[in-house]
Amino acid sequence: MTERSSSKAQAITSEVRRRIADREWRQGDRIPDEAELAVEFGVARATVNKALQLLAEEGLLDRKRRAGTHVTLNPAHKATLTIPIVREQIEQAGMEYSHRVIAQKLSPLPADASTRMALPEAALLIHLRTVHYGDGKPFQVEDRWINPQAAPGAEAIDFQRINANEWLVRNFPWLRADMAFSAENANARDARLLETRQGTALLILQRTTFNDLGAITSARLAFHPGYQMFATS
Amino acid sequence: MTERSSSKAQAITSEVRRRIADREWRQGDRIPDEAELAVEFGVARATVNKALQLLAEEGLLDRKRRAGTHVTLNPAHKATLTIPIVREQIEQAGMEYSHRVIAQKLSPLPADASTRMALPEAALLIHLRTVHYGDGKPFQVEDRWINPQAAPGAEAIDFQRINANEWLVRNFPWLRADMAFSAENANARDARLLETRQGTALLILQRTTFNDLGAITSARLAFHPGYQMFATS
Repeated sequence: MTERSSSKAQAITSEVRRRIADREWRQGDRIPDEAELAVEFGVARATVNKALQLLAEEGLLDRKRRAGTHVTLNPAHKATLTIPIVREQIEQAGMEYSHRVIAQKLSPLPADASTRMALPEAALLIHLRTVHYGDGKPFQVEDRWINPQAAPGAEAIDFQRINANEWLVRNFPWLRADMAFSAENANARDARLLETRQGTALLILQRTTFNDLGAITSARLAFHPGYQMFATS
Repeated sequence: MTERSSSKAQAITSEVRRRIADREWRQGDRIPDEAELAVEFGVARATVNKALQLLAEEGLLDRKRRAGTHVTLNPAHKATLTIPIVREQIEQAGMEYSHRVIAQKLSPLPADASTRMALPEAALLIHLRTVHYGDGKPFQVEDRWINPQAAPGAEAIDFQRINANEWLVRNFPWLRADMAFSAENANARDARLLETRQGTALLILQRTTFNDLGAITSARLAFHPGYQMFATS
Protein backbone atom coordinates (compact mmCIF):
# COMPACT_ATOMS: atom_id res chain seq x y z
CA MET A 1 0.00 0.00 0.00
CA THR A 2 1.19 3.50 -0.69
CA GLU A 3 1.21 6.22 1.94
CA ARG A 4 -1.79 7.75 0.26
CA SER A 5 -4.03 4.69 0.16
CA SER A 6 -2.99 4.04 3.75
CA SER A 7 -4.28 7.44 4.92
CA LYS A 8 -7.47 6.92 2.89
CA ALA A 9 -7.93 3.60 4.66
CA GLN A 10 -7.52 5.43 7.97
CA ALA A 11 -10.24 7.92 7.04
CA ILE A 12 -12.55 5.00 6.30
CA THR A 13 -11.83 3.28 9.61
CA SER A 14 -12.62 6.55 11.43
CA GLU A 15 -15.89 6.95 9.59
CA VAL A 16 -16.90 3.33 10.23
CA ARG A 17 -16.07 3.74 13.93
CA ARG A 18 -18.21 6.90 14.01
CA ARG A 19 -21.17 5.15 12.36
CA ILE A 20 -20.99 2.35 14.89
CA ALA A 21 -20.58 4.74 17.82
CA ASP A 22 -23.51 6.81 16.56
CA ARG A 23 -25.50 3.61 16.07
CA GLU A 24 -26.16 4.34 12.40
CA TRP A 25 -24.82 0.82 12.03
CA ARG A 26 -25.96 -1.23 14.99
CA GLN A 27 -24.54 -4.39 16.43
CA GLY A 28 -25.42 -7.38 14.26
CA ASP A 29 -26.23 -5.18 11.22
CA ARG A 30 -24.82 -6.20 7.88
CA ILE A 31 -22.87 -3.28 6.47
CA PRO A 32 -22.70 -2.35 2.74
CA ASP A 33 -20.33 -4.52 0.72
CA GLU A 34 -16.82 -3.48 -0.35
CA ALA A 35 -17.86 -2.44 -3.84
CA GLU A 36 -20.61 -0.11 -2.51
CA LEU A 37 -18.28 1.41 0.08
CA ALA A 38 -15.55 1.90 -2.54
CA VAL A 39 -18.04 3.93 -4.61
CA GLU A 40 -19.29 5.86 -1.56
CA PHE A 41 -15.78 6.79 -0.39
CA GLY A 42 -14.34 7.19 -3.89
CA VAL A 43 -11.45 4.80 -3.27
CA ALA A 44 -10.20 1.46 -4.60
CA ARG A 45 -11.86 -1.68 -3.28
CA ALA A 46 -8.47 -2.80 -1.90
CA THR A 47 -8.43 0.31 0.29
CA VAL A 48 -11.89 -0.46 1.70
CA ASN A 49 -10.77 -4.04 2.24
CA LYS A 50 -7.70 -2.86 4.17
CA ALA A 51 -9.81 -0.61 6.41
CA LEU A 52 -12.43 -3.27 7.13
CA GLN A 53 -9.74 -5.87 7.79
CA LEU A 54 -8.17 -3.62 10.40
CA LEU A 55 -11.52 -3.15 12.14
CA ALA A 56 -12.14 -6.89 11.96
CA GLU A 57 -8.76 -7.54 13.62
CA GLU A 58 -9.79 -5.14 16.37
CA GLY A 59 -13.00 -7.12 16.78
CA LEU A 60 -15.42 -4.34 15.77
CA LEU A 61 -16.48 -6.05 12.54
CA ASP A 62 -17.15 -9.68 11.80
CA ARG A 63 -16.25 -10.69 8.24
CA LYS A 64 -17.43 -13.87 6.60
CA ARG A 65 -16.78 -14.68 2.95
CA ARG A 66 -20.38 -15.49 2.03
CA ALA A 67 -22.41 -13.78 4.75
CA GLY A 68 -20.72 -10.41 4.27
CA THR A 69 -19.48 -8.03 6.95
CA HIS A 70 -21.49 -7.43 10.12
CA VAL A 71 -21.01 -5.17 13.11
CA THR A 72 -19.79 -7.58 15.78
CA LEU A 73 -22.38 -8.63 18.33
CA ASN A 74 -19.80 -8.93 21.06
CA PRO A 75 -17.34 -6.18 20.25
CA ALA A 76 -13.59 -6.01 20.77
CA HIS A 77 -12.54 -8.31 23.54
CA LYS A 78 -8.87 -7.85 22.91
CA ALA A 79 -6.54 -5.45 24.61
CA THR A 80 -2.91 -4.71 24.06
CA LEU A 81 -0.55 -5.02 26.91
CA THR A 82 2.93 -3.58 26.79
CA ILE A 83 5.47 -5.96 28.25
CA PRO A 84 7.86 -3.70 30.09
CA ILE A 85 11.60 -4.07 30.43
CA VAL A 86 11.98 -3.56 34.15
CA ARG A 87 14.90 -1.10 33.92
CA GLU A 88 13.04 1.07 31.39
CA GLN A 89 9.90 0.91 33.47
CA ILE A 90 11.71 2.13 36.57
CA GLU A 91 13.59 4.85 34.67
CA GLN A 92 10.41 6.02 32.95
CA ALA A 93 8.92 6.52 36.41
CA GLY A 94 11.81 8.93 37.04
CA MET A 95 13.70 6.64 39.41
CA GLU A 96 17.24 5.36 39.33
CA TYR A 97 17.50 1.70 38.45
CA SER A 98 19.66 -0.85 40.24
CA HIS A 99 19.51 -4.60 40.74
CA ARG A 100 20.99 -7.26 42.95
CA VAL A 101 21.48 -10.90 42.04
CA ILE A 102 20.64 -13.05 45.07
CA ALA A 103 21.54 -16.39 43.49
CA GLN A 104 22.79 -17.64 40.13
CA LYS A 105 23.54 -21.35 39.67
CA LEU A 106 22.77 -24.44 37.60
CA SER A 107 19.87 -26.28 39.25
CA PRO A 108 17.45 -29.08 38.36
CA LEU A 109 14.20 -27.72 36.89
CA PRO A 110 11.20 -28.13 39.22
CA ALA A 111 7.91 -29.63 37.99
CA ASP A 112 5.89 -26.41 37.55
CA ALA A 113 8.61 -24.64 35.53
CA SER A 114 9.17 -27.83 33.53
CA THR A 115 5.50 -27.76 32.46
CA ARG A 116 5.61 -24.08 31.54
CA MET A 117 8.83 -24.47 29.55
CA ALA A 118 7.95 -27.86 27.99
CA LEU A 119 11.33 -29.19 29.13
CA PRO A 120 12.11 -32.39 31.05
CA GLU A 121 11.83 -32.18 34.83
CA ALA A 122 15.21 -32.04 36.58
CA ALA A 123 16.99 -30.77 33.42
CA LEU A 124 19.92 -28.57 34.50
CA LEU A 125 19.06 -24.93 33.84
CA ILE A 126 20.36 -21.62 35.11
CA HIS A 127 18.37 -20.55 38.15
CA LEU A 128 18.53 -16.87 38.96
CA ARG A 129 16.99 -14.77 41.70
CA THR A 130 17.18 -10.99 41.33
CA VAL A 131 15.71 -7.95 43.05
CA HIS A 132 15.15 -4.82 40.93
CA TYR A 133 15.17 -1.47 42.72
CA GLY A 134 13.94 2.05 41.94
CA ASP A 135 15.78 4.71 43.94
CA GLY A 136 16.95 1.92 46.22
CA LYS A 137 13.43 0.67 47.01
CA PRO A 138 12.46 -2.87 45.95
CA PHE A 139 10.34 -2.76 42.80
CA GLN A 140 10.21 -6.35 41.62
CA VAL A 141 11.50 -9.74 42.71
CA GLU A 142 12.37 -12.04 39.83
CA ASP A 143 12.74 -15.81 40.02
CA ARG A 144 14.00 -16.97 36.65
CA TRP A 145 15.02 -20.15 34.84
CA ILE A 146 17.15 -19.82 31.70
CA ASN A 147 17.59 -22.59 29.14
CA PRO A 148 21.14 -22.49 27.71
CA GLN A 149 19.99 -24.67 24.78
CA ALA A 150 17.81 -21.81 23.53
CA ALA A 151 20.05 -19.04 24.88
CA PRO A 152 23.61 -20.26 24.18
CA GLY A 153 26.27 -18.41 26.12
CA ALA A 154 24.03 -17.73 29.12
CA GLU A 155 26.20 -19.98 31.35
CA ALA A 156 29.14 -17.59 30.96
CA ILE A 157 27.27 -14.37 31.81
CA ASP A 158 27.52 -12.60 35.15
CA PHE A 159 23.98 -11.30 35.56
CA GLN A 160 25.08 -8.85 38.25
CA ARG A 161 26.83 -6.95 35.43
CA ILE A 162 23.84 -6.93 33.08
CA ASN A 163 20.39 -7.94 34.21
CA ALA A 164 19.09 -11.14 32.62
CA ASN A 165 15.89 -9.51 31.30
CA GLU A 166 17.89 -7.11 29.12
CA TRP A 167 20.62 -9.55 28.14
CA LEU A 168 18.04 -12.04 26.93
CA VAL A 169 15.88 -9.48 25.15
CA ARG A 170 18.93 -8.05 23.36
CA ASN A 171 20.39 -11.37 22.29
CA PHE A 172 17.48 -13.76 21.89
CA PRO A 173 14.39 -12.42 20.13
CA TRP A 174 11.43 -14.45 21.20
CA LEU A 175 8.72 -15.67 18.88
CA ARG A 176 6.06 -16.42 21.46
CA ALA A 177 5.42 -15.40 25.04
CA ASP A 178 2.97 -17.00 27.46
CA MET A 179 1.85 -14.89 30.36
CA ALA A 180 -0.34 -15.40 33.39
CA PHE A 181 -1.40 -12.78 35.93
CA SER A 182 -2.39 -13.75 39.42
CA ALA A 183 -2.29 -12.55 42.99
CA GLU A 184 -0.39 -14.20 45.83
CA ASN A 185 0.07 -13.47 49.49
CA ALA A 186 3.78 -12.65 49.96
CA ASN A 187 5.68 -15.66 51.29
CA ALA A 188 8.55 -15.18 53.74
CA ARG A 189 11.14 -14.71 50.96
CA ASP A 190 8.98 -12.31 48.89
CA ALA A 191 8.31 -10.28 52.03
CA ARG A 192 11.98 -10.07 52.97
CA LEU A 193 13.16 -9.13 49.47
CA LEU A 194 10.33 -6.64 48.85
CA GLU A 195 10.68 -5.23 52.38
CA THR A 196 7.03 -5.78 53.17
CA ARG A 197 5.00 -7.98 55.50
CA GLN A 198 4.37 -11.64 54.90
CA GLY A 199 0.82 -12.06 53.56
CA THR A 200 0.71 -8.75 51.68
CA ALA A 201 -1.11 -9.18 48.33
CA LEU A 202 1.35 -9.13 45.41
CA LEU A 203 0.66 -8.97 41.68
CA ILE A 204 2.46 -11.92 40.09
CA LEU A 205 3.32 -12.23 36.41
CA GLN A 206 4.54 -15.60 35.14
CA ARG A 207 6.16 -15.13 31.76
CA THR A 208 7.70 -17.80 29.52
CA THR A 209 9.26 -16.99 26.14
CA PHE A 210 10.10 -19.31 23.29
CA ASN A 211 12.22 -19.23 20.16
CA ASP A 212 12.60 -21.96 17.55
CA LEU A 213 15.01 -23.82 19.87
CA GLY A 214 12.39 -24.12 22.62
CA ALA A 215 11.76 -22.23 25.84
CA ILE A 216 14.30 -19.45 26.38
CA THR A 217 13.34 -18.47 29.89
CA SER A 218 10.53 -18.60 32.42
CA ALA A 219 10.25 -15.98 35.12
CA ARG A 220 8.00 -15.37 38.09
CA LEU A 221 7.86 -11.62 38.65
CA ALA A 222 6.48 -10.44 41.98
CA PHE A 223 5.78 -6.69 42.04
CA HIS A 224 5.93 -4.43 45.06
CA PRO A 225 2.67 -3.93 47.00
CA GLY A 226 0.29 -1.46 45.34
CA TYR A 227 1.81 -1.88 41.88
CA GLN A 228 -0.64 -1.54 38.96
CA MET A 229 -0.11 -2.79 35.42
CA PHE A 230 -2.01 -0.90 32.73
CA ALA A 231 -3.45 -2.04 29.41
CA THR A 232 -5.55 -0.27 26.79
CA SER A 233 -7.65 -1.29 23.89
CA MET B 1 -6.02 -7.77 -0.76
CA THR B 2 -7.24 -10.98 -2.34
CA GLU B 3 -7.23 -14.30 -0.51
CA ARG B 4 -4.21 -15.33 -2.59
CA SER B 5 -1.99 -12.33 -1.89
CA SER B 6 -2.95 -12.69 1.78
CA SER B 7 -1.62 -16.25 1.96
CA LYS B 8 1.52 -15.15 0.09
CA ALA B 9 1.99 -12.42 2.68
CA GLN B 10 1.66 -15.07 5.38
CA ALA B 11 4.39 -17.19 3.74
CA ILE B 12 6.65 -14.14 3.79
CA THR B 13 6.00 -13.38 7.46
CA SER B 14 6.86 -17.02 8.32
CA GLU B 15 10.09 -16.85 6.36
CA VAL B 16 11.08 -13.53 7.93
CA ARG B 17 10.34 -14.93 11.40
CA ARG B 18 12.49 -17.97 10.59
CA ARG B 19 15.41 -15.82 9.42
CA ILE B 20 15.26 -13.79 12.60
CA ALA B 21 14.92 -16.89 14.80
CA ASP B 22 17.85 -18.53 12.97
CA ARG B 23 19.81 -15.29 13.33
CA GLU B 24 20.40 -14.98 9.59
CA TRP B 25 19.02 -11.52 10.21
CA ARG B 26 20.20 -10.33 13.60
CA GLN B 27 18.79 -7.67 15.87
CA GLY B 28 19.60 -4.21 14.56
CA ASP B 29 20.38 -5.50 11.04
CA ARG B 30 18.89 -3.63 8.12
CA ILE B 31 16.93 -6.09 5.98
CA PRO B 32 16.69 -5.97 2.15
CA ASP B 33 14.24 -3.39 0.85
CA GLU B 34 10.74 -4.13 -0.40
CA ALA B 35 11.71 -4.20 -4.06
CA GLU B 36 14.48 -6.76 -3.46
CA LEU B 37 12.23 -8.95 -1.33
CA ALA B 38 9.47 -8.75 -3.93
CA VAL B 39 11.91 -10.13 -6.52
CA GLU B 40 13.24 -12.79 -4.15
CA PHE B 41 9.76 -14.04 -3.19
CA GLY B 42 8.27 -13.51 -6.65
CA VAL B 43 5.36 -11.40 -5.36
CA ALA B 44 4.05 -7.85 -5.71
CA ARG B 45 5.72 -5.14 -3.63
CA ALA B 46 2.37 -4.48 -1.92
CA THR B 47 2.38 -8.07 -0.65
CA VAL B 48 5.87 -7.66 0.83
CA ASN B 49 4.71 -4.36 2.35
CA LYS B 50 1.72 -6.05 3.94
CA ALA B 51 3.88 -8.81 5.45
CA LEU B 52 6.49 -6.39 6.81
CA GLN B 53 3.78 -4.11 8.19
CA LEU B 54 2.30 -6.99 10.14
CA LEU B 55 5.70 -7.88 11.62
CA ALA B 56 6.28 -4.20 12.44
CA GLU B 57 2.95 -4.08 14.27
CA GLU B 58 4.05 -7.11 16.26
CA GLY B 59 7.24 -5.26 17.10
CA LEU B 60 9.65 -7.66 15.37
CA LEU B 61 10.64 -5.13 12.69
CA ASP B 62 11.26 -1.43 12.95
CA ARG B 63 10.28 0.50 9.81
CA LYS B 64 11.40 4.02 9.07
CA ARG B 65 10.69 5.74 5.79
CA ARG B 66 14.26 6.84 5.09
CA ALA B 67 16.36 4.49 7.20
CA GLY B 68 14.66 1.34 5.86
CA THR B 69 13.51 -1.70 7.80
CA HIS B 70 15.59 -3.10 10.65
CA VAL B 71 15.19 -6.07 12.93
CA THR B 72 14.01 -4.49 16.19
CA LEU B 73 16.63 -4.14 18.89
CA ASN B 74 14.11 -4.64 21.66
CA PRO B 75 11.64 -7.05 20.13
CA ALA B 76 7.91 -7.37 20.64
CA HIS B 77 6.89 -5.92 23.96
CA LYS B 78 3.23 -6.16 23.21
CA ALA B 79 0.88 -8.94 24.13
CA THR B 80 -2.75 -9.49 23.36
CA LEU B 81 -5.12 -9.99 26.17
CA THR B 82 -8.59 -11.35 25.65
CA ILE B 83 -11.15 -9.48 27.71
CA PRO B 84 -13.54 -12.16 28.82
CA ILE B 85 -17.29 -11.89 29.25
CA VAL B 86 -17.69 -13.43 32.67
CA ARG B 87 -20.61 -15.71 31.74
CA GLU B 88 -18.74 -17.09 28.72
CA GLN B 89 -15.61 -17.53 30.77
CA ILE B 90 -17.44 -19.57 33.39
CA GLU B 91 -19.31 -21.63 30.79
CA GLN B 92 -16.13 -22.27 28.83
CA ALA B 93 -14.65 -23.74 31.99
CA GLY B 94 -17.55 -26.22 31.92
CA MET B 95 -19.44 -24.69 34.83
CA GLU B 96 -22.99 -23.45 35.11
CA TYR B 97 -23.24 -19.68 35.28
CA SER B 98 -25.41 -17.73 37.70
CA HIS B 99 -25.24 -14.28 39.23
CA ARG B 100 -26.72 -12.35 42.11
CA VAL B 101 -27.23 -8.58 42.28
CA ILE B 102 -26.39 -7.38 45.81
CA ALA B 103 -27.28 -3.73 45.22
CA GLN B 104 -28.52 -1.57 42.36
CA LYS B 105 -29.26 2.10 42.95
CA LEU B 106 -28.47 5.65 41.84
CA SER B 107 -25.57 6.97 43.94
CA PRO B 108 -23.13 9.88 43.90
CA LEU B 109 -19.90 8.97 42.10
CA PRO B 110 -16.90 8.73 44.45
CA ALA B 111 -13.61 10.50 43.70
CA ASP B 112 -11.59 7.53 42.40
CA ALA B 113 -14.30 6.40 39.95
CA SER B 114 -14.85 10.04 38.93
CA THR B 115 -11.18 10.27 37.88
CA ARG B 116 -11.28 7.00 35.97
CA MET B 117 -14.50 7.95 34.16
CA ALA B 118 -13.61 11.63 33.62
CA LEU B 119 -16.99 12.58 35.09
CA PRO B 120 -17.77 15.10 37.83
CA GLU B 121 -17.52 13.84 41.38
CA ALA B 122 -20.90 13.23 43.02
CA ALA B 123 -22.66 12.89 39.63
CA LEU B 124 -25.59 10.49 40.03
CA LEU B 125 -24.73 7.17 38.38
CA ILE B 126 -26.05 3.64 38.66
CA HIS B 127 -24.09 1.76 41.26
CA LEU B 128 -24.24 -2.00 41.02
CA ARG B 129 -22.72 -4.79 43.06
CA THR B 130 -22.90 -8.30 41.64
CA VAL B 131 -21.44 -11.72 42.42
CA HIS B 132 -20.88 -14.13 39.52
CA TYR B 133 -20.91 -17.85 40.29
CA GLY B 134 -19.68 -20.99 38.53
CA ASP B 135 -21.55 -24.10 39.71
CA GLY B 136 -22.71 -22.06 42.67
CA LYS B 137 -19.18 -21.10 43.79
CA PRO B 138 -18.20 -17.41 43.79
CA PHE B 139 -16.07 -16.64 40.74
CA GLN B 140 -15.95 -12.85 40.63
CA VAL B 141 -17.23 -9.91 42.63
CA GLU B 142 -18.10 -6.90 40.51
CA ASP B 143 -18.46 -3.33 41.77
CA ARG B 144 -19.70 -1.27 38.83
CA TRP B 145 -20.72 2.31 38.01
CA ILE B 146 -22.84 2.87 34.89
CA ASN B 147 -23.25 6.25 33.22
CA PRO B 148 -26.82 6.57 31.82
CA GLN B 149 -25.64 9.48 29.63
CA ALA B 150 -23.47 7.09 27.62
CA ALA B 151 -25.72 4.06 28.11
CA PRO B 152 -29.27 5.43 27.79
CA GLY B 153 -31.94 3.11 29.11
CA ALA B 154 -29.71 1.62 31.81
CA GLU B 155 -31.88 3.15 34.57
CA ALA B 156 -34.82 0.96 33.52
CA ILE B 157 -32.98 -2.37 33.42
CA ASP B 158 -33.24 -5.01 36.10
CA PHE B 159 -29.70 -6.38 36.16
CA GLN B 160 -30.80 -9.47 38.03
CA ARG B 161 -32.54 -10.53 34.79
CA ILE B 162 -29.56 -9.87 32.54
CA ASN B 163 -26.10 -9.22 33.93
CA ALA B 164 -24.79 -5.70 33.31
CA ASN B 165 -21.59 -6.89 31.60
CA GLU B 166 -23.60 -8.59 28.83
CA TRP B 167 -26.32 -5.97 28.58
CA LEU B 168 -23.73 -3.23 28.13
CA VAL B 169 -21.58 -5.19 25.69
CA ARG B 170 -24.61 -6.06 23.56
CA ASN B 171 -26.05 -2.57 23.48
CA PHE B 172 -23.14 -0.18 23.78
CA PRO B 173 -20.07 -0.97 21.70
CA TRP B 174 -17.08 0.67 23.30
CA LEU B 175 -14.39 2.48 21.44
CA ARG B 176 -11.72 2.46 24.14
CA ALA B 177 -11.09 0.49 27.28
CA ASP B 178 -8.65 1.33 30.06
CA MET B 179 -7.54 -1.49 32.26
CA ALA B 180 -5.35 -1.87 35.31
CA PHE B 181 -4.31 -5.09 37.03
CA SER B 182 -3.33 -5.14 40.66
CA ALA B 183 -3.44 -7.32 43.74
CA GLU B 184 -5.37 -6.53 46.93
CA ASN B 185 -5.83 -8.25 50.23
CA ALA B 186 -9.53 -9.17 50.45
CA ASN B 187 -11.45 -6.67 52.55
CA ALA B 188 -14.33 -7.80 54.75
CA ARG B 189 -16.90 -7.47 51.95
CA ASP B 190 -14.75 -9.19 49.29
CA ALA B 191 -14.07 -12.02 51.73
CA ARG B 192 -17.75 -12.50 52.57
CA LEU B 193 -18.92 -12.40 48.93
CA LEU B 194 -16.08 -14.61 47.63
CA GLU B 195 -16.45 -16.96 50.62
CA THR B 196 -12.81 -16.67 51.56
CA ARG B 197 -10.77 -15.22 54.44
CA GLN B 198 -10.14 -11.55 54.87
CA GLY B 199 -6.58 -10.75 53.74
CA THR B 200 -6.47 -13.41 50.99
CA ALA B 201 -4.64 -12.05 47.92
CA LEU B 202 -7.09 -11.27 45.08
CA LEU B 203 -6.39 -10.38 41.47
CA ILE B 204 -8.18 -7.09 40.76
CA LEU B 205 -9.04 -5.76 37.33
CA GLN B 206 -10.23 -2.17 37.05
CA ARG B 207 -11.85 -1.68 33.65
CA THR B 208 -13.38 1.52 32.25
CA THR B 209 -14.93 1.69 28.79
CA PHE B 210 -15.76 4.74 26.69
CA ASN B 211 -17.86 5.54 23.65
CA ASP B 212 -18.26 8.88 21.91
CA LEU B 213 -20.65 10.02 24.67
CA GLY B 214 -18.06 9.54 27.40
CA ALA B 215 -17.42 6.81 29.95
CA ILE B 216 -19.97 4.01 29.70
CA THR B 217 -19.02 2.08 32.79
CA SER B 218 -16.21 1.48 35.24
CA ALA B 219 -15.94 -1.79 37.10
CA ARG B 220 -13.70 -3.22 39.78
CA LEU B 221 -13.58 -6.97 39.28
CA ALA B 222 -12.21 -9.05 42.15
CA PHE B 223 -11.51 -12.65 41.14
CA HIS B 224 -11.69 -15.68 43.40
CA PRO B 225 -8.43 -16.68 45.14
CA GLY B 226 -6.04 -18.61 42.86
CA TYR B 227 -7.53 -17.22 39.65
CA GLN B 228 -5.07 -16.73 36.75
CA MET B 229 -5.59 -14.54 33.71
CA PHE B 230 -3.67 -15.61 30.61
CA ALA B 231 -2.22 -13.58 27.75
CA THR B 232 -0.12 -14.55 24.74
CA SER B 233 2.01 -12.73 22.27
